[in-house]
Amino acid sequence: MKSKVLESLSEALQLLELKDGMTLSFHHHLRNGDYVLNMVLAAARKLGLKDLTINASAIFDCHLPLLDLIRDGTVTGLECNYCGALVGRALSRGLLERPVVFRSHGGRPADLERGTAHIDVAFVAAPTADICGNLSGKYGQSACGSLGYAFSDARYADKVVAITDNLVPYPLADFSIAETEVDYVVAVEQIGDPSGIVSGTTRITRDPVGLLMADMAAAAIEASGLLRDGFSFQTGAGGASLAVAYALEKIMERQKIQGSFASGGITSKLVEMHSWGYFETLLDVQCFDLDAARSIRDNPAHREISAAHYASPTAASAVVDSLDVVILGATEIDTDFNVNVHTNSQGLIMGGSGGHSDTAAGAKLAIIIAPLTRARLPLIVDRVHTISTPGSTVDMLVTQYGVAVNPRQTELATRLRQAGLKISSIDELRQLAEKICGTPKDLEHDGRIVAEVRYRDGDTIDLIRQVN
Amino acid sequence: MKSKVLESLSEALQLLELKDGMTLSFHHHLRNGDYVLNMVLAAARKLGLKDLTINASAIFDCHLPLLDLIRDGTVTGLECNYCGALVGRALSRGLLERPVVFRSHGGRPADLERGTAHIDVAFVAAPTADICGNLSGKYGQSACGSLGYAFSDARYADKVVAITDNLVPYPLADFSIAETEVDYVVAVEQIGDPSGIVSGTTRITRDPVGLLMADMAAAAIEASGLLRDGFSFQTGAGGASLAVAYALEKIMERQKIQGSFASGGITSKLVEMHSWGYFETLLDVQCFDLDAARSIRDNPAHREISAAHYASPTAASAVVDSLDVVILGATEIDTDFNVNVHTNSQGLIMGGSGGHSDTAAGAKLAIIIAPLTRARLPLIVDRVHTISTPGSTVDMLVTQYGVAVNPRQTELATRLRQAGLKISSIDELRQLAEKICGTPKDLEHDGRIVAEVRYRDGDTIDLIRQVN
Repeated sequence: MKSKVLESLSEALQLLELKDGMTLSFHHHLRNGDYVLNMVLAAARKLGLKDLTINASAIFDCHLPLLDLIRDGTVTGLECNYCGALVGRALSRGLLERPVVFRSHGGRPADLERGTAHIDVAFVAAPTADICGNLSGKYGQSACGSLGYAFSDARYADKVVAITDNLVPYPLADFSIAETEVDYVVAVEQIGDPSGIVSGTTRITRDPVGLLMADMAAAAIEASGLLRDGFSFQTGAGGASLAVAYALEKIMERQKIQGSFASGGITSKLVEMHSWGYFETLLDVQCFDLDAARSIRDNPAHREISAAHYASPTAASAVVDSLDVVILGATEIDTDFNVNVHTNSQGLIMGGSGGHSDTAAGAKLAIIIAPLTRARLPLIVDRVHTISTPGSTVDMLVTQYGVAVNPRQTELATRLRQAGLKISSIDELRQLAEKICGTPKDLEHDGRIVAEVRYRDGDTIDLIRQVN
Repeated sequence: MKSKVLESLSEALQLLELKDGMTLSFHHHLRNGDYVLNMVLAAARKLGLKDLTINASAIFDCHLPLLDLIRDGTVTGLECNYCGALVGRALSRGLLERPVVFRSHGGRPADLERGTAHIDVAFVAAPTADICGNLSGKYGQSACGSLGYAFSDARYADKVVAITDNLVPYPLADFSIAETEVDYVVAVEQIGDPSGIVSGTTRITRDPVGLLMADMAAAAIEASGLLRDGFSFQTGAGGASLAVAYALEKIMERQKIQGSFASGGITSKLVEMHSWGYFETLLDVQCFDLDAARSIRDNPAHREISAAHYASPTAASAVVDSLDVVILGATEIDTDFNVNVHTNSQGLIMGGSGGHSDTAAGAKLAIIIAPLTRARLPLIVDRVHTISTPGSTVDMLVTQYGVAVNPRQTELATRLRQAGLKISSIDELRQLAEKICGTPKDLEHDGRIVAEVRYRDGDTIDLIRQVN
């Protein structure tokens, strides 16, 4: 039994022979409770390392200490699929010299496979690890369920270090990442704050506007012809997205429809729908709450999948390619149906693609659901500030004032009309929004480039500029 | 839902653009019941393909039709970890111009990772597949349990084709190989003969010599100091190897020892010991019988592992590295403790390393168990005809006439003597064997090279020569 357990993180960093300029990777299953990224970077700073690039599947507000590490030159590069508003704002102000590289959840493993991304050392936050590095997210005080985003890191990184607060004897039979990939195991007191782990915004909206939109979206799904036995579905953890699941459930019950799978980030609502028989299988790359984390541990039909299996365009196939319907949000959408989920109305970074563009590209029906105005700003614009998801992959928009169908989807529009749904053109909805809010001032477009958005095919789809 | 299902194997071969000279791979979980290798090669011959190399984890007697394909030039290269006696004899007679490449179960995935082996197209015999190529060996009429050896093929081959006789709707939640790796799925009537699948020689010996040796081996394990809580163990499916498990069970019961894991090919006996609590976990790269195939499906503590996880020397670690004791067979052993499991006394190919050299290298105590003479031929020789496993990794030999300890293991010898076991030198046992059988005639060593044995580190450890 050759234990890989090290005394401390700094011992690990020394054994790894970390050098200035290297790329370190992290995953975001501990969400806003993650301690690991900050912990590793603090140790790296202590060693005097400089010029590191962080490749994280997502950056949350809990990673705010990252800003100090950028200021002192420890970190000079960032690649991620999502970036929370607190860190995002500083990046938009031009804190990093090199542009941030934004990818999607499917594009990240794809770029690792293509070799257009490279990880020197992956740090895997492991809620349970045995002494040889078999890892699981399903057990322990910091259990987060799926470790799906970390699979590609473990596979492609030159070296892999697991950080755990639940070290167990060999062998951990129910491993998700195998010891074959893991070089060192570091045991620490705590890898995350339980109150921040698996704490997405997973409560259904009580806002009547959100409920109205959810009912419209569900009616549109019903009318689309896709809601039949074998139906597959993905929705986010936001209030309105979640409300669609409730609305859909009622229709599925009435029509006695037996769905096939729900995918993506899994919430307690989807666990419930699965347990009641609405969906046979849950394919889970990320648990959004504790119910989901419990379910993936105990229920064989709730299956952990890797990010590549979820959404990679270089995979022979991925779950998103088999998806019927996905419900997605937007901060902006333009009249070509391009969607922005990266920047807010001021042009400040406050999000990222996640699986947005992947599911939109894969699903038969990609529905954007969003209120027509927010804080007196129109949802629909002539041209989104940032293209996160190209309009060619977006099929319809649901707002509280009506539904717009992408002109490419003529059959869908016909079906919806036949079902009695009121269809507007997206330009009509844009005009309505502007009537309510006025035309927003154009942002300046000549700032320095602070981020580039890489589409899942590896190409740069848009640039994000500095906001002063 | 983009189905990958093709109408026929020949359609698959055409879409794959198979070319002369390519390497096709196969795995051996269907053992002597496998139809897939013959089926694919018959289709390849029909297309007029020539000069193919077969990289199979093992070749069984059911693959005898391979000889005709070698004769007509369809196949001109063979790489495998084991070759049954019927095919082996023809190879030893010089049927192939290019030498056969023998690897071990751990060396095969390692060479694929190193790039010193390459697979153009992997054919995975899949007892269950969904239409997008999520695969499992646990379900269906041809269920074989673990698909462990096929994992590396799926990962490293340029293209992957699943051949199944149990096509199920998407998604197969309990997949072992993911759709990400699988390009095509071909549905056929039957992928194997149920009477040949999972039909290892898994009955305990009734031979009193075998039982005597098993008791001696168990006593030696007890004396070694390794038999304590957390004990881990591997043994083969042969009668005498299996008898060691029975003998060990009695000692473990008496001493109330709670073992950790049993690994490798899993038999019903190990399943039984697991269910009775002697081993907490089963780590399974290959199910040897139907009880094991059922258990791996229903029991979460009976876990499928890949060949790399089992035994790869290029993995960060593998199960064999954590193994306490392994029981292994031998056709010959020499006075340096080198072991031959490739060729028989006439020099004819009739086996291969499988996991022999991997487990010997990894385990703390590698025990060879074999009768001192067989068919009036001595087990122990001056120099084995073929080195399968180097003596430096072999710790002791158990025969019915006594136990020999590798001189490198001085502490082991002391412990065994203290426990009252009779220890002979291996040369004393050799002399005894020769007294019984006489000195065997030396084989000619100047024949053409028909096979090379590559050790798990990738180096050639020995050559096998033509026998006329």
